[in-house]
Amino acid sequence: MTRPTARRGAGRPRTPVLSRDRIVDAALELIDDGGTFSLGLLAERLAVKPSSFYNHISGKDDILAGVQERITDAIDAGMFERLPWADAVVEWARAYRAAFVAHPHAIALFATAPVMGAGRTLRMYEQVVTGFRAAGWPLEAIIPAIVAIESFVLGSALDAVAPATILEPGPDAEAVPLFAAAVSARDLRAAAENMTAADLAFATGLRAMIDGLAASASR
Amino acid sequence: MTRPTARRGAGRPRTPVLSRDRIVDAALELIDDGGTFSLGLLAERLAVKPSSFYNHISGKDDILAGVQERITDAIDAGMFERLPWADAVVEWARAYRAAFVAHPHAIALFATAPVMGAGRTLRMYEQVVTGFRAAGWPLEAIIPAIVAIESFVLGSALDAVAPATILEPGPDAEAVPLFAAAVSARDLRAAAENMTAADLAFATGLRAMIDGLAASASR
Repeated sequence: MTRPTARRGAGRPRTPVLSRDRIVDAALELIDDGGTFSLGLLAERLAVKPSSFYNHISGKDDILAGVQERITDAIDAGMFERLPWADAVVEWARAYRAAFVAHPHAIALFATAPVMGAGRTLRMYEQVVTGFRAAGWPLEAIIPAIVAIESFVLGSALDAVAPATILEPGPDAEAVPLFAAAVSARDLRAAAENMTAADLAFATGLRAMIDGLAASASR
Repeated sequence: MTRPTARRGAGRPRTPVLSRDRIVDAALELIDDGGTFSLGLLAERLAVKPSSFYNHISGKDDILAGVQERITDAIDAGMFERLPWADAVVEWARAYRAAFVAHPHAIALFATAPVMGAGRTLRMYEQVVTGFRAAGWPLEAIIPAIVAIESFVLGSALDAVAPATILEPGPDAEAVPLFAAAVSARDLRAAAENMTAADLAFATGLRAMIDGLAASASR
């Protein structure tokens, strides 16, 4: 048996064949590296000509849709079929935040990129909307609530990757005594509850948002 | 009277003298342009050597602190002295979101940059914490609540600059019928209430978060 790659000859670099998956992988790596995303930079990273992309994808939006799918693949939404609404939202929001904590540079991109073409991401939304509907939410109230939760989750993912000392006032502490005291009190509380400051803020906000949404839905 | 700049000679470009304000202005412009922020790129934009910055600022963090101040200068927090807590939070959150809608590329940076050195931003926080304290909030519960609100506001600012059609399922609509129906119902509702979809999600989430926080504070 001869492996197909052996036919290429010894002097030729063993570059995997270009594919949609490989383009999307490289796009996510480029985004994770924190730079600007462009087809030119992506082609450079893959050592191909930009024109060769078009055998596999239809353009930049198609690549970003693939990246959205790749990230949201980590967000299980099956809990909406198993758990009561409020518990399911907690689990979903946690998984959602974790998926973006793993890719913080994708947050702004995801928050502003159309979902069209990201079929697997759309199916996640279908599961979530189905869960809201089953819990009795009026159809016209569901998307605003989901978008509100997502905005909170994405902002919280940014907070989770911030330095733990982000709110330490430093040399200005004397000028802002109540703020400095509140930050110290928060730090003591987080330590006592064995949580990071970011996890404490996330748990606080998620509880508040879910309680508030539940109250609005029952009005 | 001779203007001081006239002394420079006719052939010399009239470049304003470098100052902390001018460096911070240029840094915010660089961020607004959506690229990567670095001292090298900033020096290039100002047509100076990076070493010349150090007569005016102590380093990159100092510039970013200046940018934070510049953005948060637009966020009045005086309402906490005038309005009941819940009304003040609504006003503050709206002003906060508007300030970042004007500088969306600064959102991820602001969410992860230390506040140390940003004296005017710290004074905004002092006013907010004072408002929470006056409303009876326990000291250790204030910062988690404020950070939760900020996370929601920053995520909502990203949503506000996203295309209005971001959630349109497009050709996949048949595969996600309930989601597609929920998006249409949301669009009709937003039109009937004369709001953008993003404003509707923001109002929904802010109401929920404030109601939920108020309920938690009174427990």
